Amino acid sequence: MMSTTTVNHRIRLAARPHGVPTPADFQHDAVEVPSPGAGQVLLRTRYISLDPYVRGRMSDAKSYAAPMEIGDVIVGATVSEVVRSEADGFTPGDVVLSYGGWQEYSVESTGHLRHLDPEAAPVTTALGVLGMPGFTAYAGLLAIGKPQPGETVAVAAATGPVGSAVGQIARIHGARAIGIAGGERKVAQLRELGFDAALDHRAPDLPGRLAEASPEGIDVYFENVGGAVWDAVLPQLNEFARVPVCGLAANYNATALPEGPDRSGQLMGSVLAKSLTLRGFIQREFASTMFPDFLRDMTGWVTSGQVQYTEDITQGLDSTPEAFVGMLRGANFGKAIVQVS
Amino acid sequence: MMSTTTVNHRIRLAARPHGVPTPADFQHDAVEVPSPGAGQVLLRTRYISLDPYVRGRMSDAKSYAAPMEIGDVIVGATVSEVVRSEADGFTPGDVVLSYGGWQEYSVESTGHLRHLDPEAAPVTTALGVLGMPGFTAYAGLLAIGKPQPGETVAVAAATGPVGSAVGQIARIHGARAIGIAGGERKVAQLRELGFDAALDHRAPDLPGRLAEASPEGIDVYFENVGGAVWDAVLPQLNEFARVPVCGLAANYNATALPEGPDRSGQLMGSVLAKSLTLRGFIQREFASTMFPDFLRDMTGWVTSGQVQYTEDITQGLDSTPEAFVGMLRGANFGKAIVQVS
Repeated sequence: MMSTTTVNHRIRLAARPHGVPTPADFQHDAVEVPSPGAGQVLLRTRYISLDPYVRGRMSDAKSYAAPMEIGDVIVGATVSEVVRSEADGFTPGDVVLSYGGWQEYSVESTGHLRHLDPEAAPVTTALGVLGMPGFTAYAGLLAIGKPQPGETVAVAAATGPVGSAVGQIARIHGARAIGIAGGERKVAQLRELGFDAALDHRAPDLPGRLAEASPEGIDVYFENVGGAVWDAVLPQLNEFARVPVCGLAANYNATALPEGPDRSGQLMGSVLAKSLTLRGFIQREFASTMFPDFLRDMTGWVTSGQVQYTEDITQGLDSTPEAFVGMLRGANFGKAIVQVS
Repeated sequence: MMSTTTVNHRIRLAARPHGVPTPADFQHDAVEVPSPGAGQVLLRTRYISLDPYVRGRMSDAKSYAAPMEIGDVIVGATVSEVVRSEADGFTPGDVVLSYGGWQEYSVESTGHLRHLDPEAAPVTTALGVLGMPGFTAYAGLLAIGKPQPGETVAVAAATGPVGSAVGQIARIHGARAIGIAGGERKVAQLRELGFDAALDHRAPDLPGRLAEASPEGIDVYFENVGGAVWDAVLPQLNEFARVPVCGLAANYNATALPEGPDRSGQLMGSVLAKSLTLRGFIQREFASTMFPDFLRDMTGWVTSGQVQYTEDITQGLDSTPEAFVGMLRGANFGKAIVQVS
């Protein structure tokens, strides 16, 4: 399965991006495949997950996760195959959810690895609908958003792996789902997914169209983009609305604060005037309490077809930076994944 | 007790204030004392409560309460005495918590009136520590802030009726309390009230002094002022910090948005990066579930001396506008009240 001449192609952080990442921010190299120590496994990467939070870790601004250092292999969840094992319970050929990053091989300790059953579901779903993005949607919507039957839930980036799960779970819980996405093709997909209203944020007058689509206001806004969508949503929020904040993709490539006036005090004024709840979260906060329920519920919904998902798979490790930048600007169509081997 | 020649002096809204209210915004007049209908009582106002939310109701901007109309008597909670009763259960001489506003007499239906026992506590406490401000502190701190033993709670306007209760209740619950107020005299009072740290927001470098006073960060910030204090608090908030938002006094007289840059996206970024909870609230949301506990707990704490309070009582109805404007800029020292009769 592996010869001693095999090399490990990697993509490392060459420089901290200023704004949108460019090719110069990534360094491709090749090194010898590492050897696992006691309790470790050598993994061959099959799929790399592309996720917005990785852009944050390329910067050195304080955030919820420590930044990468210059020279580090770019981080990311992976679906990988065990090629050599020095750990109990792992055998060559096993497929695992791992955190190998942007490279062909990784050596990992086994504490965080999760065995995947290729018979139960396509293994790529562990990076999307049955993985971190799906769990982000499930935990944020149910633990913070708490949608009630008949309420209205809005979400942007709604064809993405988080947004599409938010809308579909909201509908399963009896709420009305409004999806916002960029472009006619994505809007059409939202309708196929069963969203009650689908809006193109690229078309004119999003605030007016959103108001029209939410005649009874919005009770839960699952925030994963920020920017102009948030500006359109805020006036529609009802008293006691809940806003789980799991991402602000519109800001990730910003290099300076936008021009004034300063609307931060006005935002606090809306929080007060409408008794809003704004709650930032990272899915890991809920992992110990909700992940087993999530896996049970979501596997059932995917199996029954109540939750559908889309994957956008790019071929080849070398394509990863370009696919990543495309994902940041919404060029992907469904969960963005790179197939490495 | 009442003669047919008695007139009712009133203060009405003459114009919506632009910025800080001026004398021209208030109209003093005198009319015949009204007569109670069936189920109503005629009340003589003894004390008027001055509260920041009233400034909001003078404007016609959308908020949590309907605005006053031009010509309306300025609203406000009152402690009043029944002078004529056409309602069961109310007898001349009874002292009640009412909502008579800025006038000498009011006719009110009895559904919202609460009998006060002058033997149990000074009746003015029904406007402060044992009334809406005290309940605002109790409900917001305990239901939203949820301070845990050893955590740090910060509050501004900390000698005011809400802030002083927040700090003292936080300490009763085992938390460390940081109080922020304007001027040396108020800072000295915070120390007497038992606050663990007391900061003057008028002295230079509030951010630096606040950082020094919160070496383990801030877990709960009870927001009632906004502005520069919030700017100093935000960097000190810990992961999972809770921010009950009950007022933004610094903004109430603002006439335009402040100059840029626009920091609203940055604020959302902090909510995300630290998993913050921002939660606006009005005390009435919690009235049905928490008010009886509040009255029991707070009466006990006041009686035992665990919670102290200060009142700033101005004499005479005609002084009300000036005392109100002074309260808005923090000139009062403790709960601001006008004694009418």
